[in-house]
Amino acid sequence: MALVPNNSLVTATPEEGRELALKMARLVIKATQPDDEVRGKLRPVFAEDPNSRIAIGHVVAVEFATIAAANDYWR
Amino acid sequence: MALVPNNSLVTATPEEGRELALKMARLVIKATQPDDEVRGKLRPVFAEDPNSRIAIGHVVAVEFATIAAANDYWR
Amino acid sequence: MALVPNNSLVTATPEEGRELALKMARLVIKATQPDDEVRGKLRPVFAEDPNSRIAIGHVVAVEFATIAAANDYWR
Amino acid sequence: MALVPNNSLVTATPEEGRELALKMARLVIKATQPDDEVRGKLRPVFAEDPNSRIAIGHVVAVEFATIAAANDYWR
Amino acid sequence: MALVPNNSLVTATPEEGRELALKMARLVIKATQPDDEVRGKLRPVFAEDPNSRIAIGHVVAVEFATIAAANDYWR
Amino acid sequence: MALVPNNSLVTATPEEGRELALKMARLVIKATQPDDEVRGKLRPVFAEDPNSRIAIGHVVAVEFATIAAANDYWR
Repeated sequence: MALVPNNSLVTATPEEGRELALKMARLVIKATQPDDEVRGKLRPVFAEDPNSRIAIGHVVAVEFATIAAANDYWR
Repeated sequence: MALVPNNSLVTATPEEGRELALKMARLVIKATQPDDEVRGKLRPVFAEDPNSRIAIGHVVAVEFATIAAANDYWR
Repeated sequence: MALVPNNSLVTATPEEGRELALKMARLVIKATQPDDEVRGKLRPVFAEDPNSRIAIGHVVAVEFATIAAANDYWR
Repeated sequence: MALVPNNSLVTATPEEGRELALKMARLVIKATQPDDEVRGKLRPVFAEDPNSRIAIGHVVAVEFATIAAANDYWR
Repeated sequence: MALVPNNSLVTATPEEGRELALKMARLVIKATQPDDEVRGKLRPVFAEDPNSRIAIGHVVAVEFATIAAANDYWR
Repeated sequence: MALVPNNSLVTATPEEGRELALKMARLVIKATQPDDEVRGKLRPVFAEDPNSRIAIGHVVAVEFATIAAANDYWR
């Protein structure tokens, strides 16, 4: 199981750092429910719940804070 | 898909940093539900739920913390 | 739209930093629902829900962390 | 309205820092509902809801992180 | 009332730092409901609610971040 | 009770750091409900609730931020 794509927090740009944050957030959520069928049933419920989407946005923001620090904010 | 407008966390002022935080929060939430029609149906529900709005405020605060650090707090 | 009063995170004292955190949190929540009438209807519901008030307290705490760092903790 | 007792984040000990975090969290929650009567009605509901108490614990943890940094962790 | 056992954030090891984070989280939650009888009634409800347990895990994570920084990550 | 595997926050890679974050999050949640039978009953409910899984993702993100800082982001 890969939880960190390329096993590195370093990215070339903020955009790539943001994509990494999204991927890392999804990989952890997947790791807690590895059954594809269960995930398939839950996806539609989840996708139409705005509060779930805000909650994911929150997780991505926290992951991104770490990635941004790892890249010294791409300054 | 652009997740970070201008692909940079650097802004001229705190106000622009705050606007960037709002945009970045929205772009992630949009990325998790790219279907315009579904988003259109959910928007009114969402807009009238004060707790959803506080939750978004929370996400913006986290994004802004990262952006503010990236700009050395515009000191 | 002003999201950061005075366009600065610098304040003279912790008390003023705290007031700024409260204002910044409110301005983002307002920015996500600019319709005064809708906000007016929701306010009483919101004001009597202790969990909403705790949630706002949480957002203020996060904003304040950023402002405090920006002011080097007023040391 | 005082949001930061003594208008300072500096405390002599971690214990006093923790007490300050509790006070600051409560003062913000109070500031969002200044009506004593409304607060009086809500208090019992609130005090018996374990999730509300965990949520307050979370806010205190965030406030304390800021206060601890302001005091260089009392090292 | 003691909110910080030993009135110090310094611990010998990460394991002890983690135990301190758990204790500090519990002491704040206890401080907001000092009535032993009320806490006794709520405990079973609380212990069987997985979301409450995740929420406590979140608070402990935030407390631990502060304690880890205070100990320079035990490096 | 071990709350920090190997009693160290240092890991060789980001992937191992992420695995440690997952383990530490689970160990705290387990510590708040040590009864195996109760945990067994709750697991299916929990596993099928997408919001619970997002909430765990959030906790892992916070733990990982600490571990990443402890490892100087594996730079």
